[in-house]
Amino acid sequence: MKPSTEKRAGISEIRIIGVPGLPEIRPTDPIPALLHARLKALRFALEPGDICLVTQKIISKAEGAVVDLEAVTPSPFALQVARRIKKDPRLLEVVLQQSQRIVRMDRDIMICETKHGWICANAGVDQSNVPGRNFVTLLPADPDGSARRFSRELEALFHFPVPVILTDTFGRPWREGLTNVAIGSAGLEPLIDWRGKRDPFGYELQKTLVAVADELASAAELVMGKIEGIPIAIVRGYAYQPSDAGSQSLIRPPAKDMFR
Amino acid sequence: MKPSTEKRAGISEIRIIGVPGLPEIRPTDPIPALLHARLKALRFALEPGDICLVTQKIISKAEGAVVDLEAVTPSPFALQVARRIKKDPRLLEVVLQQSQRIVRMDRDIMICETKHGWICANAGVDQSNVPGRNFVTLLPADPDGSARRFSRELEALFHFPVPVILTDTFGRPWREGLTNVAIGSAGLEPLIDWRGKRDPFGYELQKTLVAVADELASAAELVMGKIEGIPIAIVRGYAYQPSDAGSQSLIRPPAKDMFR
Repeated sequence: MKPSTEKRAGISEIRIIGVPGLPEIRPTDPIPALLHARLKALRFALEPGDICLVTQKIISKAEGAVVDLEAVTPSPFALQVARRIKKDPRLLEVVLQQSQRIVRMDRDIMICETKHGWICANAGVDQSNVPGRNFVTLLPADPDGSARRFSRELEALFHFPVPVILTDTFGRPWREGLTNVAIGSAGLEPLIDWRGKRDPFGYELQKTLVAVADELASAAELVMGKIEGIPIAIVRGYAYQPSDAGSQSLIRPPAKDMFR
Repeated sequence: MKPSTEKRAGISEIRIIGVPGLPEIRPTDPIPALLHARLKALRFALEPGDICLVTQKIISKAEGAVVDLEAVTPSPFALQVARRIKKDPRLLEVVLQQSQRIVRMDRDIMICETKHGWICANAGVDQSNVPGRNFVTLLPADPDGSARRFSRELEALFHFPVPVILTDTFGRPWREGLTNVAIGSAGLEPLIDWRGKRDPFGYELQKTLVAVADELASAAELVMGKIEGIPIAIVRGYAYQPSDAGSQSLIRPPAKDMFR
């Protein structure tokens, strides 16, 4: 099944729909079932072709990827860094434990390569939107696996395939501001390859690989915001390419990356 | 006027609307007037609160920012590079002339800092979607200025303010694939600053500056595509923050950039 872009008098349209009013997520909470119930209460029916975008934060909470800083013993290195940049050494310890490589360390900024291969500030460890001052969330241990499970559970509830993208807001070099990106996905191709296709003038496109999973994540952030408590968005009308690939293909291989 | 996000039974919704069927743009073509006519033909009325996203490509064409490679004399450096990477030396010459700095040069890839300060492959010089095999487009000379003019002309036609974002697809470090980003804008704040705001748990957000102009550009790309010939998208229902700032604030100052 390849969903087609909605047409309306020649106009193609994609809708980004925020799902408000989900409860605060606790360990082992069945988010797909909670979403199903919430959409029902909102009298909003998912349709075949819809894509479900979920912030990493609630997945981490449901999976118990939350750390109580009270229980963390900072290493000598974490203590040393903490003195220099005036941060909580226990938080730094968690960041180090989530990293397989420190990409840059400058002033009070740590850009880390996570165990999964994502490059982001603080290895994705985050203090915001967590109940309790001493708790931080980690990225899910296996974001593609989490997305696959989520997608499978949605399919069981809705009786048609629903691709899922797990998102987080990451910074990037050269440009100010964070943007929401994909850190895991299931059911859709995260990269669309236009190479070899021809533009309207017959020119064969080169090196045109578009990270649509990241673009979908960015679109979703526009309805999610940071303080509105909207952790799930539905994208309707985007003709995604069904695929079993996860989002690991979004990680540029080290040999091809000129900015490691 | 601060437009509010559309509400429907508790659901917040943003719509991304592609405008098909615009004619091929030629130098001096009045794109806002062509858009106005096209929307009328499609019986689609712009509304206050709508944002207009336009690919750089058609702005460059209208502004005559197109170069005939036949008329380019490559410098000795361009000739030397061309021999090594097997590219057209005239194309490389145009790329060099559009650059104020070469950020990286490796294999057949040139990452350049444009005269405006954007960092991207080939300084934004592009051979795709241009009629004639020997023509390339440049980025507009002053993308914020182009966006301001476009927005002013839309306001004259529609009788309410219409913010405008000029977009191009850029690559980025660490992650595969291009995403659509803002290279110019008018009428809306490109960065939303959540710093100092509190999350639902009372935690004060830190360093949370979101590049919404880039997220809007990414959302727009989902309806634009690369070969569909949809160079303009309308975003409806996003509560943008009106502003006179252009998109130069999206360029990270060199002193703050760890990946120059």
